[in-house]
Amino acid sequence: MKPFRPSLLSNSGGILRAPCFIIFSVAAGRVVVFLSDFGPDSLYVGQVKGVLAGIPVLDLCHDIPPEDVRAGAYALFTSWKYFPSGSIFLAVIDPGVGTARKALAASWNGYFFVAPDNGLLSPFMEGDFRAVELAVPAEASPTFHARDVFAPAARRLALGESLENLGQPCPSPVYCAFFSPRETADGIRGRVILRDRFGNLITNVPAAMLEGKNFAVMAGGKEIFPARTYGDVEPGKPLAVIGSGGFLELSVRDGDAGEALSLSVGDIVEVIWKKI
Amino acid sequence: MKPFRPSLLSNSGGILRAPCFIIFSVAAGRVVVFLSDFGPDSLYVGQVKGVLAGIPVLDLCHDIPPEDVRAGAYALFTSWKYFPSGSIFLAVIDPGVGTARKALAASWNGYFFVAPDNGLLSPFMEGDFRAVELAVPAEASPTFHARDVFAPAARRLALGESLENLGQPCPSPVYCAFFSPRETADGIRGRVILRDRFGNLITNVPAAMLEGKNFAVMAGGKEIFPARTYGDVEPGKPLAVIGSGGFLELSVRDGDAGEALSLSVGDIVEVIWKKI
Amino acid sequence: MKPFRPSLLSNSGGILRAPCFIIFSVAAGRVVVFLSDFGPDSLYVGQVKGVLAGIPVLDLCHDIPPEDVRAGAYALFTSWKYFPSGSIFLAVIDPGVGTARKALAASWNGYFFVAPDNGLLSPFMEGDFRAVELAVPAEASPTFHARDVFAPAARRLALGESLENLGQPCPSPVYCAFFSPRETADGIRGRVILRDRFGNLITNVPAAMLEGKNFAVMAGGKEIFPARTYGDVEPGKPLAVIGSGGFLELSVRDGDAGEALSLSVGDIVEVIWKKI
Repeated sequence: MKPFRPSLLSNSGGILRAPCFIIFSVAAGRVVVFLSDFGPDSLYVGQVKGVLAGIPVLDLCHDIPPEDVRAGAYALFTSWKYFPSGSIFLAVIDPGVGTARKALAASWNGYFFVAPDNGLLSPFMEGDFRAVELAVPAEASPTFHARDVFAPAARRLALGESLENLGQPCPSPVYCAFFSPRETADGIRGRVILRDRFGNLITNVPAAMLEGKNFAVMAGGKEIFPARTYGDVEPGKPLAVIGSGGFLELSVRDGDAGEALSLSVGDIVEVIWKKI
Repeated sequence: MKPFRPSLLSNSGGILRAPCFIIFSVAAGRVVVFLSDFGPDSLYVGQVKGVLAGIPVLDLCHDIPPEDVRAGAYALFTSWKYFPSGSIFLAVIDPGVGTARKALAASWNGYFFVAPDNGLLSPFMEGDFRAVELAVPAEASPTFHARDVFAPAARRLALGESLENLGQPCPSPVYCAFFSPRETADGIRGRVILRDRFGNLITNVPAAMLEGKNFAVMAGGKEIFPARTYGDVEPGKPLAVIGSGGFLELSVRDGDAGEALSLSVGDIVEVIWKKI
Repeated sequence: MKPFRPSLLSNSGGILRAPCFIIFSVAAGRVVVFLSDFGPDSLYVGQVKGVLAGIPVLDLCHDIPPEDVRAGAYALFTSWKYFPSGSIFLAVIDPGVGTARKALAASWNGYFFVAPDNGLLSPFMEGDFRAVELAVPAEASPTFHARDVFAPAARRLALGESLENLGQPCPSPVYCAFFSPRETADGIRGRVILRDRFGNLITNVPAAMLEGKNFAVMAGGKEIFPARTYGDVEPGKPLAVIGSGGFLELSVRDGDAGEALSLSVGDIVEVIWKKI
């Protein structure tokens, strides 16, 4: 029996793109900034880059924990200002792909966004934020909208199309209050939202809630004292710093705070006001 | 005793390149698309990018499981069409580096390929496929042909050299029937060939073998039913979908199919035809 | 109680950049080559790329083991020659961030470097090596100098500023003899300094110390014989090769030397001279 051999030119897995590489019409200042939970240098990231070939792309982050929309929102919220005005954030943390969730393109403050409608863009839902709903072509893979829906939309924005051109207005996108920890009688009840490669634990407590106040932190059954930076404590000692993203972080100098404090994403971190 | 200090300008580890960065002569449309099993953002990937400095490079994937030629072939087979015509696929999954296996450059359907001769290019061995054998310079590191043999060849193609210029014709490159699962009396016996970061299990059963048919899937001792996408089943339930690469995939909605079904790469997946 | 909502336009986490993307004044030949221990495609890597937006950036490596300055020095030492003259190596393995360690920019042999003063640049401290000390702006995050101190300096060099313009001379930067293993009565006592994704064990013994000599290697209680490349031994057998970086490496053909020899980074590798 002659073995079946799949055809190269059939196209059951996605949308065939017109070939072209050097693109002269990228709109001034429009770079695509790509965020996902697809895993570093994974094939899914690579196929999206094919769809965007010819357009400048910067990778913001691809090691967001799988399906962690809040971590993705943290990445966007703490990073947009480092990118040029006009940047297009292609942000795909999309646990709902293949369900009825909408696909969005949006603009805010001179920036653009393309993302699933699951709260990922919540930090930008203020001021001049506007969103439109993207159509999903019939031939799009129902399990990979990043490649077949979101990247083509980012490409169109990069080539200068207006947001309005991409879809009908979406007046009430999903909003999640990811970075608004609960204020308690004597402080703030926050949570660990991310653990970095060095074991630092990033919380959802913004620096602005702590400014000018005296406090200690209770987490993992330990009292941890605030410091400006690692050098302010002895090696091996824990400290609470305002991290590089502008949120409270728990660290251990020359150590791994996640391990030392036995804390993971989702665990509670209590800020307690201190009298001077 | 004065300690030995290795010289910076000696060159025992590879081939010294002439310095130059801005390259005006990249042939129209020729971008290098880089696939390897070197690991994301690893030093081996970085050194290859040095050799290609000045030429546009897109990363297709670097998290192919070490030495898994079939997984690399899957990546190429399912991705080429997303890249512009004229793209040069630099594909190095090379368990045989340092043995007598040949080094190839090839062309097919307007695309170019540079790869070891181990079956990695099998999906393209049809139609106008042509291959030439690359010479291995004496000074090439015998353990890192990606940097010292394959990348320089990709660079020459990007600068507009013809395939013929790169070596003598290689009439019978190694071919492997990676994506031709065995047809059985009542269905297809396939295998898991890749597990992605989300736990989805990609099989070697192409969508074209399933089109218009009714079937169920037996895998890991369970019967799994086909669905169009994740939203078609309840959270936590398994399903069999045509994945974004055009092959049968096993998934669990909001879950990890590899874990839930206790299946790994290489395990058997049976498709069984059903009467309506 | 209205929940606190952090402001988007406040800037507690870093330095706000002026928006601009297309940069016409990148100095000829100046590409930024980025090395870190931040993790592949991590958010820290992404934010640095935002600061460098508009300037060509190549990733050298981001999977250096956390805080392993020696591994970072190995990456620089074995890679600089693959990059064009004028390249700016932005190298941040920085266990001392937030302590009193200095921040440096340097030049050597037509290349530039931006790095913490912790020995990372030791391999280049010869010949025309010069270093200046970078000022740390008050508004820099005390835990993320890569983004707020080093990347802005790399950007200034890429735009053509001179090294002298970046700071006051730093006459005696920290030097570490990372790649000078101890010579013994009958050979060399080296150490494993890196394990790659394939299980190869890279040592700090440079090829130049072994040239023209007969030797065997004792490591993990086993005697391992030198070979030119993997193909010179049977599958599953260990061998000692001159690796692609120009240092002695221990490998197992078609296997994982780290596992097979039970060796890790830091373990001793003895070279023993043999009479013919």
